Amino acid sequence: MKKIGIFGTTGYAGLQLISLLNRHQSIEITFAASNRYANEKLSSIYRQFKGELDLTLVSTEKAYAQVSSVDLVFLALPHTISMTIAKKIMTLNKDVKIVDLSGDFRFNDYKIYEEYYDTKHILKDFLKKYTYGLPEIYREKIKKSQYVANPGCYPTSAILPLYPLVKENIISKSHIIIDSKSGLSGTGRKENINFLFTESVNNVYAYNTGSHRHQPEIKDHLYNADILFSPHIVPSVRGIFSTIYCQLEESITADIINATFKKYYEEEFFIRLDTNIPKVNQVQRTNYCDISYTIDSKNKKLILYSCIDNLMKGAASQAIQNMNLMLGINEKESIDNNLFYL
Amino acid sequence: MKKIGIFGTTGYAGLQLISLLNRHQSIEITFAASNRYANEKLSSIYRQFKGELDLTLVSTEKAYAQVSSVDLVFLALPHTISMTIAKKIMTLNKDVKIVDLSGDFRFNDYKIYEEYYDTKHILKDFLKKYTYGLPEIYREKIKKSQYVANPGCYPTSAILPLYPLVKENIISKSHIIIDSKSGLSGTGRKENINFLFTESVNNVYAYNTGSHRHQPEIKDHLYNADILFSPHIVPSVRGIFSTIYCQLEESITADIINATFKKYYEEEFFIRLDTNIPKVNQVQRTNYCDISYTIDSKNKKLILYSCIDNLMKGAASQAIQNMNLMLGINEKESIDNNLFYL
Amino acid sequence: MKKIGIFGTTGYAGLQLISLLNRHQSIEITFAASNRYANEKLSSIYRQFKGELDLTLVSTEKAYAQVSSVDLVFLALPHTISMTIAKKIMTLNKDVKIVDLSGDFRFNDYKIYEEYYDTKHILKDFLKKYTYGLPEIYREKIKKSQYVANPGCYPTSAILPLYPLVKENIISKSHIIIDSKSGLSGTGRKENINFLFTESVNNVYAYNTGSHRHQPEIKDHLYNADILFSPHIVPSVRGIFSTIYCQLEESITADIINATFKKYYEEEFFIRLDTNIPKVNQVQRTNYCDISYTIDSKNKKLILYSCIDNLMKGAASQAIQNMNLMLGINEKESIDNNLFYL
Amino acid sequence: MKKIGIFGTTGYAGLQLISLLNRHQSIEITFAASNRYANEKLSSIYRQFKGELDLTLVSTEKAYAQVSSVDLVFLALPHTISMTIAKKIMTLNKDVKIVDLSGDFRFNDYKIYEEYYDTKHILKDFLKKYTYGLPEIYREKIKKSQYVANPGCYPTSAILPLYPLVKENIISKSHIIIDSKSGLSGTGRKENINFLFTESVNNVYAYNTGSHRHQPEIKDHLYNADILFSPHIVPSVRGIFSTIYCQLEESITADIINATFKKYYEEEFFIRLDTNIPKVNQVQRTNYCDISYTIDSKNKKLILYSCIDNLMKGAASQAIQNMNLMLGINEKESIDNNLFYL
Repeated sequence: MKKIGIFGTTGYAGLQLISLLNRHQSIEITFAASNRYANEKLSSIYRQFKGELDLTLVSTEKAYAQVSSVDLVFLALPHTISMTIAKKIMTLNKDVKIVDLSGDFRFNDYKIYEEYYDTKHILKDFLKKYTYGLPEIYREKIKKSQYVANPGCYPTSAILPLYPLVKENIISKSHIIIDSKSGLSGTGRKENINFLFTESVNNVYAYNTGSHRHQPEIKDHLYNADILFSPHIVPSVRGIFSTIYCQLEESITADIINATFKKYYEEEFFIRLDTNIPKVNQVQRTNYCDISYTIDSKNKKLILYSCIDNLMKGAASQAIQNMNLMLGINEKESIDNNLFYL
Repeated sequence: MKKIGIFGTTGYAGLQLISLLNRHQSIEITFAASNRYANEKLSSIYRQFKGELDLTLVSTEKAYAQVSSVDLVFLALPHTISMTIAKKIMTLNKDVKIVDLSGDFRFNDYKIYEEYYDTKHILKDFLKKYTYGLPEIYREKIKKSQYVANPGCYPTSAILPLYPLVKENIISKSHIIIDSKSGLSGTGRKENINFLFTESVNNVYAYNTGSHRHQPEIKDHLYNADILFSPHIVPSVRGIFSTIYCQLEESITADIINATFKKYYEEEFFIRLDTNIPKVNQVQRTNYCDISYTIDSKNKKLILYSCIDNLMKGAASQAIQNMNLMLGINEKESIDNNLFYL
Repeated sequence: MKKIGIFGTTGYAGLQLISLLNRHQSIEITFAASNRYANEKLSSIYRQFKGELDLTLVSTEKAYAQVSSVDLVFLALPHTISMTIAKKIMTLNKDVKIVDLSGDFRFNDYKIYEEYYDTKHILKDFLKKYTYGLPEIYREKIKKSQYVANPGCYPTSAILPLYPLVKENIISKSHIIIDSKSGLSGTGRKENINFLFTESVNNVYAYNTGSHRHQPEIKDHLYNADILFSPHIVPSVRGIFSTIYCQLEESITADIINATFKKYYEEEFFIRLDTNIPKVNQVQRTNYCDISYTIDSKNKKLILYSCIDNLMKGAASQAIQNMNLMLGINEKESIDNNLFYL
Repeated sequence: MKKIGIFGTTGYAGLQLISLLNRHQSIEITFAASNRYANEKLSSIYRQFKGELDLTLVSTEKAYAQVSSVDLVFLALPHTISMTIAKKIMTLNKDVKIVDLSGDFRFNDYKIYEEYYDTKHILKDFLKKYTYGLPEIYREKIKKSQYVANPGCYPTSAILPLYPLVKENIISKSHIIIDSKSGLSGTGRKENINFLFTESVNNVYAYNTGSHRHQPEIKDHLYNADILFSPHIVPSVRGIFSTIYCQLEESITADIINATFKKYYEEEFFIRLDTNIPKVNQVQRTNYCDISYTIDSKNKKLILYSCIDNLMKGAASQAIQNMNLMLGINEKESIDNNLFYL
């Protein structure tokens, strides 16, 4: 039985994380920290958990005192707070493993971080020790890593369909356009008039086109391809639908694309290649990434489609997938067979 | 390993049922019938299931051929079709257990059925062999039953909070008003212009007040109390919120009510007594029934609140709870620890 | 051309008010105040208005300076702030008419106000000068009033169907239960985690049963009948559906009820008596109150149904209806013929 | 007072059309046809209209009998049915004006129609007599036209932002990608399991990428540019958000783009150039098309954003804008000043 600690339990990613960990057979939760709700029972704040999970939230300070007794720590914190706490943890327990869900450790190059996150990085020298936690691409490295930076939700949805095609030079590394549509849980659990039910329910819009923090993150894992990332908010709760437009050489056929996907993903349990365009509700509350494509020969374009649940494969269940790999547990433990049709 | 068959797999109750059975450790699905989609793979129609559940749907005829080899059959069918198929099954396998999710076997008195369902009952003599499957009230009888009629969604939400208070004469058996608000999954998965997204998304209304089929069902399990049942549709997917208005003698205090609920439900895992008014989203995708109340001494009224998920405690997970009891399996198996905060 | 001023322009009621006033043929907006957005163009904050309404918001102070030049002022402010500003206005312009949309002037008896709003009333002596602005009941008085207290949204939906029946002794004045279901625009335009899209979208719940501020307001206009008011939040934007349970003498027939409604409402343009149970979406964005009923003779109950749009008949369009009456303008001006099916 | 007839009154476009016509000061509705609901009162089927619009629907046959007495006819019918009825009308009244909302008369070249709509065109010779009804581009021609083909919803959202830039050679005519997100009212008012509330509420997906009927329609009005059109369904009721990706020469600055838009649209009342990315809810229930853009100099891309209400500027209010032009009425009559913030 491995011992686990969590910092940042009460945001959407943290709540999803703890819900899943609660069904995990091979770990136990040693502590769950939340400064906002320290010393309160999780089930008294989030009534859902009553009877399911009997757990008292602790302060960050109290959590530090237990860091030496756990095998792995999840950080489900806002960026900058995450690296501050990571720094402390690394001092307290040199052997503890860390899966960080923020953006703080996703770049090798601190300069990109500092440009896009508009803040100084306080652990520059450690950035190289963090493995990017996309198991379908970096599984072997993750297994051997002490520190893992869990990918962003949008990057997960974009890198998975693109990676094999870019790597194998099936598509051009120029003119890749990623148009993503995300539900509102991606905006977090915080007071904000723009995300009220009344303001959101019939609303659709783009934001941060070409300047979103996830753009350099995607680029980083696509061999520095020229990408334009364009995120949108749509009025659903969970899920990202990414439509990706690529330039295609005339010589590339569906057979070649199929063979490439097959080569990379045939054995991947959590990637499902679809012959139809997938729909967001077919991946909700799962760790799946569903992928399909259309060839538009007239315009010499390949259009890729991918669907993930932003709180699952885009955050919590992928973090557990990484933990399972790092701790030598069955990779699917607690993150498959959670299906709800509605 | 017990063997299970399902008739009516592809409506919302059936899909919920098969999703939950798929995570059940002590049963295996022998067949899943669907006339509409016979011979098709479940995962080709409902893409969600790909990788999770590899199952080919069979016709009713083919299912009959396997009825002799299963321990228990679920019927998740429309009423009248259900009793027709039940009749056939009972002929084919005299020992098979049945959990019926329709309204066909919920009344002891066929006359009430025939009045409210406006059709002849073809298995009148068998009605008494069916136990009403509300485990928190009839657990011991369910354990010994071959046939169980799974309760309606509204009745589950109404009977559970009312039963202890009516039985112990805490509230009057007159003037009980049950005002229930249900999400749209209760209307089923079928073509209907009224339940389109565009028509439903901002709509709220009552229907069948005082004449709904669930009214006599509720009455039946409340010692024939005078109830008025008033169902409403609200624009959510899952969940029923029932507000129940009762007459209260002045002598009845909160202490007495608390003690009564404690007496009946203290050990009940799936009933959670709440000190605050519960909210529907705290029971979504669970088998819980959350209950609380307000005393209005000025008006001599007790107001009860209950929340359930209509597809879970109101249908599929309660059906599995019954199955677990009937087959001697841990009652919670596959129906607890399924929590999603969103 | 009458001149109008508005205090509190940028909440949901204020925005609805100004949208409707903009199509009004017989008035002009002299000033629209908003402390939060003083000196900003309405269309730069709420982009919707660009091209429709070219108006710069002013501070409360600047608005005071113009109070002497207007015929009528709307107060769409939170309670307590409303009476503070009203007090000042009444000093600045003794002749100006006021329609107040808050709860501050809805009670004749300041003690009820002070109990339910938990604050001192600073204009006790003026309470009697305020007419309750329900035109279908108090039209003639409103026409002659300088000051009108615009009714609450829930009270509008409850009083209109009940008033004729209570007044004519058709129903008992005891045991009236009002179970109302409101969309989220009733909670206002303010930061609040509970009303985020993610938290609200699948949620239903009761709140303040028997203790809501609108309960004494309803009672006040029903000859002090014993009512229990029970409000609920459902995941829609606009609209209130009220289900009202009353005791009925056996001698009361549908004919009597029909005749009573006819007597009071036959000539009322904005009350529509329906033979079917109404649905919230049939009154959205209108000033209508749709009413119907069911008699449950077995339980000797009358069930009334009413639908209104909480931002229209429950706030802004009713405020304009009052203004029209007070200024001698066609009562329907700017508040009929606004229909959108979706 | 001009006289108007409508064929196809009871779909979403027809209902929107008749709601708006009802507030029009310079026309009167002579007949409104609906085969499905012939001889029924509109307000008995769509209860919303009671008190607002007292109108009995007529059969197509009865409507034909009145065609000779009207000035203009709207066809809000499915394609192929539309041209069949148009043919008959043109025989019955050689002078009547027609605004057709279907796809039947949008192409000059019948071959494109026959390919994309997979049916024979029965009025090939008349196609050239139909003007494409986009007033901001073809106003003068529309004024003089007897027949107008009202544009598709997606094409309206795509052509308006692109037209000036393509015409002035500001952007390349190659590699234009139009990624549109539409609410569900675009799918129509018809029985379809995929558009049930339960199936749609959390769902997002692409469909018909590169093969949608609106792709050649867009191309036609952009000087045959190479476009890839990619429509998506998102869970809202009204509105289209189009994100359009174009190749940009380095020499093109924001000033040039601004100047181009200004040249074409400065005087256009219904086009609003925005400095921020627009949001769908700022155009809901209006005839506006809101447009803005981002330059991505790193990738040499111009990203255009446009928002319309698909039932208004994308259908009914644009149809009335065309009618106003054709009949010499104020172009804005009945289609401006309809704003609702929520």
